[in-house]
Amino acid sequence: MDFLVNPQITKVEPPFWFFGMKNPELQLMFYGPQISEFEVSTNFDCITKIVKTENPNYLFITINTHKLTESILPFYFKKEQEIVFIQKYEFKKRRENSANRKGFDAADVVYLIMPDRFANGNDQNNSSENTTEKYNRDLPAGRHGGDIEGIIKNLDYIQSLGATAIWSTPLCEDNDADFSYHTYAQSDVYKIDPRYGSNADYLRLAQEMHQRNLKLIMDYVTNHWGITHWMIQDLPTPEWIHQFKEYTETHHKRSVINDIHASQKDLEICLKGWFVPSMPDLNLENPLVLNYIKQNAIWWIEFADLDGFRVDTYNYSEPQAMANWTKAITAEYPNFNIVGEIWMPQTAQIAYWQKDSQIGALRQYNSNLPTVMDFPLMEAISKAFNEGYSNGDTGVMRLYDHFSNDFLYPNSNNILIFGENHDTQRLNQLFGNDIRKYKLTMTLLATVRGIPQLYYGSEIGMDGDKNNGDADIRKDFPGGWPNDPQNAFIASGRTEQQNQYFDFTSQLFNWRKTNNAIHSGKMTHYIPENNLYVYFRYTATQTVMVLLNNQDELQSITTQRFAENIQHYSLGRDILSNQLIDITHQILLEPKSSLILELA
Amino acid sequence: MDFLVNPQITKVEPPFWFFGMKNPELQLMFYGPQISEFEVSTNFDCITKIVKTENPNYLFITINTHKLTESILPFYFKKEQEIVFIQKYEFKKRRENSANRKGFDAADVVYLIMPDRFANGNDQNNSSENTTEKYNRDLPAGRHGGDIEGIIKNLDYIQSLGATAIWSTPLCEDNDADFSYHTYAQSDVYKIDPRYGSNADYLRLAQEMHQRNLKLIMDYVTNHWGITHWMIQDLPTPEWIHQFKEYTETHHKRSVINDIHASQKDLEICLKGWFVPSMPDLNLENPLVLNYIKQNAIWWIEFADLDGFRVDTYNYSEPQAMANWTKAITAEYPNFNIVGEIWMPQTAQIAYWQKDSQIGALRQYNSNLPTVMDFPLMEAISKAFNEGYSNGDTGVMRLYDHFSNDFLYPNSNNILIFGENHDTQRLNQLFGNDIRKYKLTMTLLATVRGIPQLYYGSEIGMDGDKNNGDADIRKDFPGGWPNDPQNAFIASGRTEQQNQYFDFTSQLFNWRKTNNAIHSGKMTHYIPENNLYVYFRYTATQTVMVLLNNQDELQSITTQRFAENIQHYSLGRDILSNQLIDITHQILLEPKSSLILELA
Repeated sequence: MDFLVNPQITKVEPPFWFFGMKNPELQLMFYGPQISEFEVSTNFDCITKIVKTENPNYLFITINTHKLTESILPFYFKKEQEIVFIQKYEFKKRRENSANRKGFDAADVVYLIMPDRFANGNDQNNSSENTTEKYNRDLPAGRHGGDIEGIIKNLDYIQSLGATAIWSTPLCEDNDADFSYHTYAQSDVYKIDPRYGSNADYLRLAQEMHQRNLKLIMDYVTNHWGITHWMIQDLPTPEWIHQFKEYTETHHKRSVINDIHASQKDLEICLKGWFVPSMPDLNLENPLVLNYIKQNAIWWIEFADLDGFRVDTYNYSEPQAMANWTKAITAEYPNFNIVGEIWMPQTAQIAYWQKDSQIGALRQYNSNLPTVMDFPLMEAISKAFNEGYSNGDTGVMRLYDHFSNDFLYPNSNNILIFGENHDTQRLNQLFGNDIRKYKLTMTLLATVRGIPQLYYGSEIGMDGDKNNGDADIRKDFPGGWPNDPQNAFIASGRTEQQNQYFDFTSQLFNWRKTNNAIHSGKMTHYIPENNLYVYFRYTATQTVMVLLNNQDELQSITTQRFAENIQHYSLGRDILSNQLIDITHQILLEPKSSLILELA
Repeated sequence: MDFLVNPQITKVEPPFWFFGMKNPELQLMFYGPQISEFEVSTNFDCITKIVKTENPNYLFITINTHKLTESILPFYFKKEQEIVFIQKYEFKKRRENSANRKGFDAADVVYLIMPDRFANGNDQNNSSENTTEKYNRDLPAGRHGGDIEGIIKNLDYIQSLGATAIWSTPLCEDNDADFSYHTYAQSDVYKIDPRYGSNADYLRLAQEMHQRNLKLIMDYVTNHWGITHWMIQDLPTPEWIHQFKEYTETHHKRSVINDIHASQKDLEICLKGWFVPSMPDLNLENPLVLNYIKQNAIWWIEFADLDGFRVDTYNYSEPQAMANWTKAITAEYPNFNIVGEIWMPQTAQIAYWQKDSQIGALRQYNSNLPTVMDFPLMEAISKAFNEGYSNGDTGVMRLYDHFSNDFLYPNSNNILIFGENHDTQRLNQLFGNDIRKYKLTMTLLATVRGIPQLYYGSEIGMDGDKNNGDADIRKDFPGGWPNDPQNAFIASGRTEQQNQYFDFTSQLFNWRKTNNAIHSGKMTHYIPENNLYVYFRYTATQTVMVLLNNQDELQSITTQRFAENIQHYSLGRDILSNQLIDITHQILLEPKSSLILELA
């Protein structure tokens, strides 16, 4: 990193910037004792605004970067017309084609990692001098030492699984005294937490991934920072965060945002209440704050060559500010992807938040958010494959009913689909380690519309009970630590059962990599009968037939009903066994099993 | 009735028509042996189209009624240029202001009656010569003899309850050999079933009701007729109904209509499959059929001076045809109301079907249907007041969550709201006859947005278990029959418990009659805490505060949180006890109880 910091200035943010951004404006923040007492000027007549806040240690200077012709811009800090010091600011060259970078999409499979729990690639950074919480692997919710190096070392493993993208939970510094391993209470959003590595390590991760055609998705937090964030400790203005007379927590009832009957009081607490006491709620209606996090996000894209954002607690923030934030990013990178965590129970409520939603338009809202998360599908999966088939509304009918609501989305293929994540019950726990249920889930995720997301460890049958605390669903990956008794990253290190999970997952998602009908084909599904769900994905030249027998009995299914999709085809290649099956009359399905057929 | 029927013609439909309709077109159907062999002419040069079908017994003649100047139009039936006979057709004068009739709306309370089970006002028409199923009150699903006269005789009772409108299930002739008491399998849609009375009796019911300022809502069935319908017995064309090689029943999965992934096969069975074997499915895509039911509906409005339709199985028919049907009626009567039975689980799915819905627009659909039914609310009520408060998503939170989706509706006040109807479990059965749960439900229905609908008998605590068959939720109203051991139509005839139910209901809905804030005011609700739900209905000059304590414990609620609605008010008049309550600090609520306060 190349911080050009003058002794009288302790921070400049962004630490550097880039030539050739579409948006000419750049809001520079200078931080230092009584810095606001200086008069500031620079070259190129580029300063468009200077803002001083209640706190004299801050100075916000907006410049028009399109006026610059040199890569170093000197800022002259003066008192009584005399230059006291010069602070140089650097502009770097962007990577070729940076603005046109293509984000992750439905051709990808996202692998979600909790980095502290995945692999400890560097045993030297388990603790750091400047961060409070020290390494303690004995503590379930302590720091376990996993890091960026651990991810880099296991990219072959991730790739062999069939994943094409990694979403790692946040890596920026979180200096909380405990629970910092989740890293959502960040104390410096321009700096990778030293226990994970350095900014350079993060960039190296991106480079290593890109060499393997893997995409890197950063977990971005717009709603809050950690209470230990250096700026929270010395607020530029009380307005930087939302403050109440007494500590006020958000109520998690985010439906108030679109509810025509909502009380103003409930709406205020929703948007301004804090997530937890350790996470001060950012006031994105303050333009200084909004610009700060816009630029911070863009800075990481440019610096670390990112392929996407996953945005935490997306609709806990002021909606119009978030729409502006997302617009600022997608205006710079039209093909970039951002997926927001909108955790709500109904499809209409999720669809509200997707870019160009007509449901959002009912409330004059356009989020500009390309991708949302299919939490209702997660809920449906957790029941569908796990319950008895008591009546017509249960079992796979839940899945059918779910997808029948896709018309509510502006783009039902731009949806992250998953059975679990780092905040939910582990699927294998829920399924009592019944691999048949796991296979049905993975078959579904690999073949329906949307962008599948896996959660580290489940692919080797890892379980964990959220009722025992979040740490239990975030256990260490076996083999990620030196001297681990088992190394599940390699076939020979896995148990037979683990290999069954892994091999199935790997074969499935590696097959998916090259199948256009799955990536972007249409979908036709049929009303399930007797807990058996049949659907097709297809383009003009390719048809994939998927059958999910969720019933614990052998079933024979007559194919005549599917004539409009089967058309002239008479054979189906089972993508797992590679065997050809005659589909002209009946297809047999083992109890609680699935079949993916490429029609031929 | 004034059928001008020539001996050679056995039916003309509509039997007569009206001067001065907006739509000039009238499609007359002449029925008689080999009638299509005649050449037909008339005066005024008004014939615009003559259609002959496969069946020579039918002749469809469309005329332009705007060309007529006389009330009797003679049709000349000729063979070889010679007039064989003349069939005269009559046009009647419309009631003054007929086109501007105002339908039911949120100022109304609808009382739903199964006429065979409400009251037997005329013991002479229990059976009829020309209908198959005879009176048998011993049979739960038999004909019990209830009739129009029974409704007329008990209008005072209905009015005293606070209802302002009656929706009676169908009254047109249903000549099925059994289960005809439900009367949804109609055999003649221009004729009241003789066991209920005559067309003249139905008109008299409307007149008696209008004298009392009560509104009459007819139950209309567009999707099917009964297998014994005279036209089904001698089809004009095989295309009049949907026919399959083998009997094919609809699958009830009406989401296929808007599902972008639905198969054509599933869609076809949805729209064309039969409801049950005794109900042939009308083919509304055939213009002859669609015109027939448009005119039939309009004929009943004019003839019986109707105030609204309730339309059965609304989305089992071809959606565009239904939109045309509804449009034809509302074009003639812009202020008329029609409520369609759209029985689907999610608000977005219901909202799709309301006139001018932006959700419908996602599929380029506009139903033209002013009012839909809030089945998701019924579902929420059945759980909310009946379950333990296990977590934040249960109890009254279900109601809050439900209403928070109102933004999905183009008009969330044009929704029929109810806890039960003739097809569902009886509320009192569900509630184990806990009157507290009943009162909470009625308080909710009386005060939230929408048009409340009650179901006969529940107001005296009637129960009935749908698991025992539909007849059990459609029991005879005690006192409706001569010699009934009890007469619950009068206070002295009711048990103490029945009077508790009745008095509460009556007081509540009579209060509602004149309250503008309830009829058309805005609504603000607050996120429930500890199973207690608080909301306000208000206009510029009136505020009603409603509190539902669904918890089985005394609760004291601090009012400060509601400041934005309470404003300058300091007192609330309990609309039941008429007592004034100080609302400046706290309000006490008995366990499992509600309070409606008019702020003052």
